[in-house]
Amino acid sequence: MAEAHDAVEVIVAKRDGGSLSDSQIDWVVDAYTRGVVADEQMSALAMAILLNGMGRREVARWTGAMIATGERMDFSSLSRPTADKHSTGGVGDKITLPLAPLVAACGVAVPQLSGRGLGHTGGTLDKLESIPGWRAALSNEEMLAQLEDVGAVVCAAGAGLAPADKKLYALRDVTGTVEAIPLIASSIMSKKIAEGTGALVLDVKVGSGAFMKSLDQARELASTMVALGQDAGVHTVALLTDMETPLGLTAGNALEVRESVEVLAGAGVSDVDPADVLGSGKAMDAWRRMIEAQGGDPSAELPTARETHVVTAPAEGVLVRLDAMAVGLAAWRLGAGRARQGDAVQAGAGVEWHARPGDGVRSGQPLLTLHTDQPDRFARALESLDGGWEIAPAGSSYEPSPIVLDRIS
Amino acid sequence: MAEAHDAVEVIVAKRDGGSLSDSQIDWVVDAYTRGVVADEQMSALAMAILLNGMGRREVARWTGAMIATGERMDFSSLSRPTADKHSTGGVGDKITLPLAPLVAACGVAVPQLSGRGLGHTGGTLDKLESIPGWRAALSNEEMLAQLEDVGAVVCAAGAGLAPADKKLYALRDVTGTVEAIPLIASSIMSKKIAEGTGALVLDVKVGSGAFMKSLDQARELASTMVALGQDAGVHTVALLTDMETPLGLTAGNALEVRESVEVLAGAGVSDVDPADVLGSGKAMDAWRRMIEAQGGDPSAELPTARETHVVTAPAEGVLVRLDAMAVGLAAWRLGAGRARQGDAVQAGAGVEWHARPGDGVRSGQPLLTLHTDQPDRFARALESLDGGWEIAPAGSSYEPSPIVLDRIS
Repeated sequence: MAEAHDAVEVIVAKRDGGSLSDSQIDWVVDAYTRGVVADEQMSALAMAILLNGMGRREVARWTGAMIATGERMDFSSLSRPTADKHSTGGVGDKITLPLAPLVAACGVAVPQLSGRGLGHTGGTLDKLESIPGWRAALSNEEMLAQLEDVGAVVCAAGAGLAPADKKLYALRDVTGTVEAIPLIASSIMSKKIAEGTGALVLDVKVGSGAFMKSLDQARELASTMVALGQDAGVHTVALLTDMETPLGLTAGNALEVRESVEVLAGAGVSDVDPADVLGSGKAMDAWRRMIEAQGGDPSAELPTARETHVVTAPAEGVLVRLDAMAVGLAAWRLGAGRARQGDAVQAGAGVEWHARPGDGVRSGQPLLTLHTDQPDRFARALESLDGGWEIAPAGSSYEPSPIVLDRIS
Repeated sequence: MAEAHDAVEVIVAKRDGGSLSDSQIDWVVDAYTRGVVADEQMSALAMAILLNGMGRREVARWTGAMIATGERMDFSSLSRPTADKHSTGGVGDKITLPLAPLVAACGVAVPQLSGRGLGHTGGTLDKLESIPGWRAALSNEEMLAQLEDVGAVVCAAGAGLAPADKKLYALRDVTGTVEAIPLIASSIMSKKIAEGTGALVLDVKVGSGAFMKSLDQARELASTMVALGQDAGVHTVALLTDMETPLGLTAGNALEVRESVEVLAGAGVSDVDPADVLGSGKAMDAWRRMIEAQGGDPSAELPTARETHVVTAPAEGVLVRLDAMAVGLAAWRLGAGRARQGDAVQAGAGVEWHARPGDGVRSGQPLLTLHTDQPDRFARALESLDGGWEIAPAGSSYEPSPIVLDRIS
């Protein structure tokens, strides 16, 4: 039982640049979850945390307090080791889709609790829901059975896991406090630690299409999360990866599933390194079993949008820039994303690009294809793409930037 | 009609250290008053304002926007000039009580809209309500008639005056954002400007018993308010006054009324300079008419507390320190103040001190008398007085500090 505190006392301590005590943190997180600390008090505290920061002890305690508001899962009965990954969110970032079955095919169980997209970044659950019949909601027992049997599960987190995080995330979203690094780190890690994975790879995106715009911010977030994972006994590494350019060749829901299946079939783009498990077909087998186990038909036709609009290259040359944020906003405006929690998304909507930075293009060739069910959405999507790509004269040199910028462990 | 904005956009602008535009300020204050901007959004913004500050243009616009949410009073029909005063709150600070009738007796009308005490500082309305029959609520017409007839009125601000301020003040009180200087300044000045006084004296308290603990903070608040007043056409001056030591000889409701009446009768303590209008009895006449006009009986016995407890001097010597915060907390805990808005206060509760810093004391003489209706309150009150006063050996020198520390106009 946490010692009783007063909300104003806790807010004022952080406002004045102090460190919160363990007891203050335990109390305020629990009291907020129970509704004893009001939304307007927690939002003032979140703003003070955003502006004045938190030390490593505070973030660890805050994360632990959020975990303690709910249940913890237990995978110790599984015959396989567990590993999970988490991306901080990017544009065209579909890597979970081929990666989970690929890792399962290697004998490791992947217990991935995923989220839905908000804003310009996509959500893994939205993508998989474009597969006819597939369902995101599993009971803990179903999840455990599928992990043992198939080795991979991608599903929605149940309401019992870190309820404090769900409440706090919704609050931060409307109060300009999403960007607080201690709160981002504790939000992600509370779910991953409560989920009970043995190992964790964090993919911290940096650049125009990511929440972290600078390498310094991303490094701070990554280090905070790695420390939290290690302190909780989860073997954790973080990769800082580039999000100036969208990943792969598509951004959207069914569009990204289709591209992922091509990668699993061994026909992927250069963003994905070839792997033996892909060549052998074992990863594709795991994918089909993973989709089927959640009611999906892996052989079904994926939905396509009713309308398309093609943007062509105005001149011959070299595509030297394709901006992740511009593409992400366009896909969002075409209907692939949602403006607020609970909105529906279009399965077929999104953006497809026919050249990647470094590729030569001919005048008049298709550069981008926009997909939507509602043609009145094209104008706003085209607006967001305006200035979002650049063609240099033919023969111009192009220096490709690496995808993985740094590794923190 | 203000241009439409989005709450998160406004919060993020201030969070990131920017200045809010006139249009953003007009929108957010109006939208908050109408309930379109939620409490949790305004509290995040208030915290960002507290930590990142506001420029002079922003504070002026914010004040104007708060005034625009309600009605403005108009005293132009009065035959007398108008002047008002406002204290930022102190311990034993009863000066409004003798001052309003004194100024009225000089031919100036004093339209004072007062508040109730919250925390350790007293409220003028609470003090006057200890007079049998006296009522704080007047209509605008009653206020105007009393100003013309008596020349002084002390009453509660009606609900129509700067409603944004009422809502925001209640929010700041529970979210650790009371101390934001731009919000304190705009809160005070929006009411004084809307009230329509022609001249205004601000009494900005500094020291242990005040909200402003340092002279720098107090000077910043005073300058901000003087600028706001001048910009709005109100002749405004501010005095920075000492609040390390409580004022006068009592802190409480009826206790302070009794002391004020003694000052009006010409028998005041040295904190109040003698004045001709006191000596002539004209100020006392104005006081009696002011109390009667609001239903009070100026000749009635004032309530006294059921129980008293006397603290005696442990040794002979010189009282060299009596701490305002210690006395204020003690009076609060004895029942003179309230813990939350809407609580009742005890008319008779409070603290009386029988020596002031610089006075010689004999061993065993009464130093403090504590008054309350509930004797179980003595222990906690005595705790707050512990270490709150100091007696130096007889013959020790004592350097009195001035009450008025600076003047800003």
